[in-house]
Amino acid sequence: MAETSIRDYIDEHQHEFLDQLCDWLRIESISADPTHEPEVRRSADWLASALAETGFPTVEIWETPGLPAVFAEWPAADPAAPTVVVYGHHDVQPVDPVDLWDGAPFDPQLRGELLLGRGSSDDKGQVAFHLLGLRAWLAAHDATAPPVTLRFVIEGEEESGSPHFRGLLEEHRDRLGCDAVVVSDTGMWTRETPTICTGMRGMVTCQVDLSGPAVDLHSGSFGGAVVNPLDVLTQLLAGLHDDKRRVTLPGFYDDVHPLSPRERELFARLPYDENEWLETANARAAYGEDGYSTLERIWARPTCEVNGIWGGYAGAGHKTIVPSEAHAKLSFRLVADQDPMTVRKLLDDYVATAVPPGIEATVHWYGDGVRPCLTPLDAPALQAVTRAMQQAFGTEILYTREGGSGPEADLADVLQAPVVFLGVALPSDRIHAPNERVVFPLLLKGAEAAAYLWDELAQLPR
Amino acid sequence: MAETSIRDYIDEHQHEFLDQLCDWLRIESISADPTHEPEVRRSADWLASALAETGFPTVEIWETPGLPAVFAEWPAADPAAPTVVVYGHHDVQPVDPVDLWDGAPFDPQLRGELLLGRGSSDDKGQVAFHLLGLRAWLAAHDATAPPVTLRFVIEGEEESGSPHFRGLLEEHRDRLGCDAVVVSDTGMWTRETPTICTGMRGMVTCQVDLSGPAVDLHSGSFGGAVVNPLDVLTQLLAGLHDDKRRVTLPGFYDDVHPLSPRERELFARLPYDENEWLETANARAAYGEDGYSTLERIWARPTCEVNGIWGGYAGAGHKTIVPSEAHAKLSFRLVADQDPMTVRKLLDDYVATAVPPGIEATVHWYGDGVRPCLTPLDAPALQAVTRAMQQAFGTEILYTREGGSGPEADLADVLQAPVVFLGVALPSDRIHAPNERVVFPLLLKGAEAAAYLWDELAQLPR
Repeated sequence: MAETSIRDYIDEHQHEFLDQLCDWLRIESISADPTHEPEVRRSADWLASALAETGFPTVEIWETPGLPAVFAEWPAADPAAPTVVVYGHHDVQPVDPVDLWDGAPFDPQLRGELLLGRGSSDDKGQVAFHLLGLRAWLAAHDATAPPVTLRFVIEGEEESGSPHFRGLLEEHRDRLGCDAVVVSDTGMWTRETPTICTGMRGMVTCQVDLSGPAVDLHSGSFGGAVVNPLDVLTQLLAGLHDDKRRVTLPGFYDDVHPLSPRERELFARLPYDENEWLETANARAAYGEDGYSTLERIWARPTCEVNGIWGGYAGAGHKTIVPSEAHAKLSFRLVADQDPMTVRKLLDDYVATAVPPGIEATVHWYGDGVRPCLTPLDAPALQAVTRAMQQAFGTEILYTREGGSGPEADLADVLQAPVVFLGVALPSDRIHAPNERVVFPLLLKGAEAAAYLWDELAQLPR
Repeated sequence: MAETSIRDYIDEHQHEFLDQLCDWLRIESISADPTHEPEVRRSADWLASALAETGFPTVEIWETPGLPAVFAEWPAADPAAPTVVVYGHHDVQPVDPVDLWDGAPFDPQLRGELLLGRGSSDDKGQVAFHLLGLRAWLAAHDATAPPVTLRFVIEGEEESGSPHFRGLLEEHRDRLGCDAVVVSDTGMWTRETPTICTGMRGMVTCQVDLSGPAVDLHSGSFGGAVVNPLDVLTQLLAGLHDDKRRVTLPGFYDDVHPLSPRERELFARLPYDENEWLETANARAAYGEDGYSTLERIWARPTCEVNGIWGGYAGAGHKTIVPSEAHAKLSFRLVADQDPMTVRKLLDDYVATAVPPGIEATVHWYGDGVRPCLTPLDAPALQAVTRAMQQAFGTEILYTREGGSGPEADLADVLQAPVVFLGVALPSDRIHAPNERVVFPLLLKGAEAAAYLWDELAQLPR
């Protein structure tokens, strides 16, 4: 059958799709608010029903110590076909301040091409388009099963930091084996420039504590003759970067997957206005590692940031003390193939050697960190998404990355499969903010791309 | 007349002196506690009476916007004799925590050689010995007036930071003209090693404020591509010292009066145990400018200290932000002949050039600072005090300085006269702490040295 029939199906069923999505958007599944737990559970039930109606033979509510995820499985007709896990989430952000919304956050409205409502973009709209895409594929192929085995895992705590997601993945690892993971919780560069995200930075964070004199000392009596923990801290932190804004920890860049000339060229082709970006950033000047553009710095280069610092006197007026203690919070954004545990050791070693006698230093790490993830441009799964997007949008597909981290790294890590991103949200969707919205025709494009993707992934080498 | 008669007089009148001092010590003249204002006024009245009884023809209570000072004048018989201003204070520190006192803070007790009680050392005991010294001189010389014109200014707010003292000096400048100022509010190295303080460090303090992005930014979305105010602050502060712990501000040391070989040799002869000092400092290691001993660093070298620092997130766990602001409190300890206003400009210039585009920096100075003061070893007034102390103690007199600042710099500055220090307190006197005490025989030595000093100062070149 011709692909146009997928597009025709989607076009013909868009009103039904809109009605169905709006039903879901009316459910106030705010995971961060404990009083909304029944609504999150209702959202999971709604999704489970919708998956069952679509034809999934197995649909389960997966409980966690917190809020439930929804699992659904539909085996391919061909038992040798690849398996694909689709990730998304059915919980939404809080809606405060409600006053700033033009309408009620949970009374979705289509205004022109824009569908307004909490969750329309992040992430119910992008989970829902998979249902439409799959129906379209089945109708267009007159089939009773998808060309790949599909396993949906749609969690209910993403907007609360996915506290139980890794545990859930580990618990159900044997039921989630797959050849690729498709994440539909990201966006594109602009409507006119459809893109695919190829990676996310990882992260590891810590607190550095320095202690010097047992008590705050009078700087008249002792200043200049004992070590000041704040002096040591500022030297220690300043020493983490050289004058090219590179991190000085020896070997820090050893495992960094360098940007290929091809990737840099593709990034550079994204329509980009630095002044607009600065406005978005509320910043006055771009600043960072020598030799890289702003987008390269955010997407493809690791960082060391001081997130907070404190010690000594911070009240009104002045207090002339040599303080007893100094503290800082640090975070490292990491890129593939940096290992958070390796970076931890680099900083531990640096701190141990950077402090003079008279200072005790400790580094407290917040967890083991989040691994960076990156799908190389030539990865078969990424090529498959690229072709599917090209077919849906009829235009060249470019690439982006994300500077932050999500549960995606856990998917790659626990399931040991390549992660690819199929998302049609836009930076202008106001996710997490009042008046969240989505460009409704882009959800239809997402459905179309998803339908094409199953054929593309069916051909994955196994 | 022989000097021994001064000593004899003091010896014979020591019990009377003790009784008189104890009367004064019973007055609870805590200047920091507003409920004690009547007691501070009673203390001023007590001192005024004592001065009048001693024979001062002019005794006045000098009101300030706060608590009163006491002024007394006794012209020399010879109108051509030099004039000497004597400075001390009649207010005392609070007594909390009272539980830690062995007896009642305002019920003075002589236990062996130690006189216990709030103010016994700081500073009533050291003001009172002047009255005994003067009576001794008059008796020994069978005279009705001192050999120098004496002008006593005994303030009532020193323990509250002398907020109105400079104003008082300026208001009464014409009545306080003098050839030397004798400050009796400092101490000696040890009982066995009598010393004279020759100078105090000055000070100037400020707050540095840096602002970068208009709001805290998500470090995933922006980290590495915008300037982080905390990075700039740590670089800026770390850049204030070189690896020899010298302050890097260009010209910072230009006006520093270098330590003479003679002064270094005299400092080095003070009995000193670095481990004991570290214990006093609650510090684990000595640390400071290369090429100087601990005492030299505290007494004779300027410093730049970070007294406090804050910015970004300092709560539990971590928050991965690029913060919007960064702040620090700085103080410079200054030595003669550094000018606080010159140092202010050096830092202002440094901050202005040290911040990259994207950061706005401001430096807020707390006042004009306190000038350092130093009396050279060969200054005639210091030589006079040295000879007077030698005669009283019968041993060689060594020299110290103080690392902090008091109202003494204002005396030198407003009265434009050399300031010398005649004090017999000891570091073990527990001033400002529970169980304040003084070695009573040292107060008698102080009286004796003061008596000899008037003869010495009478020979000052005018």
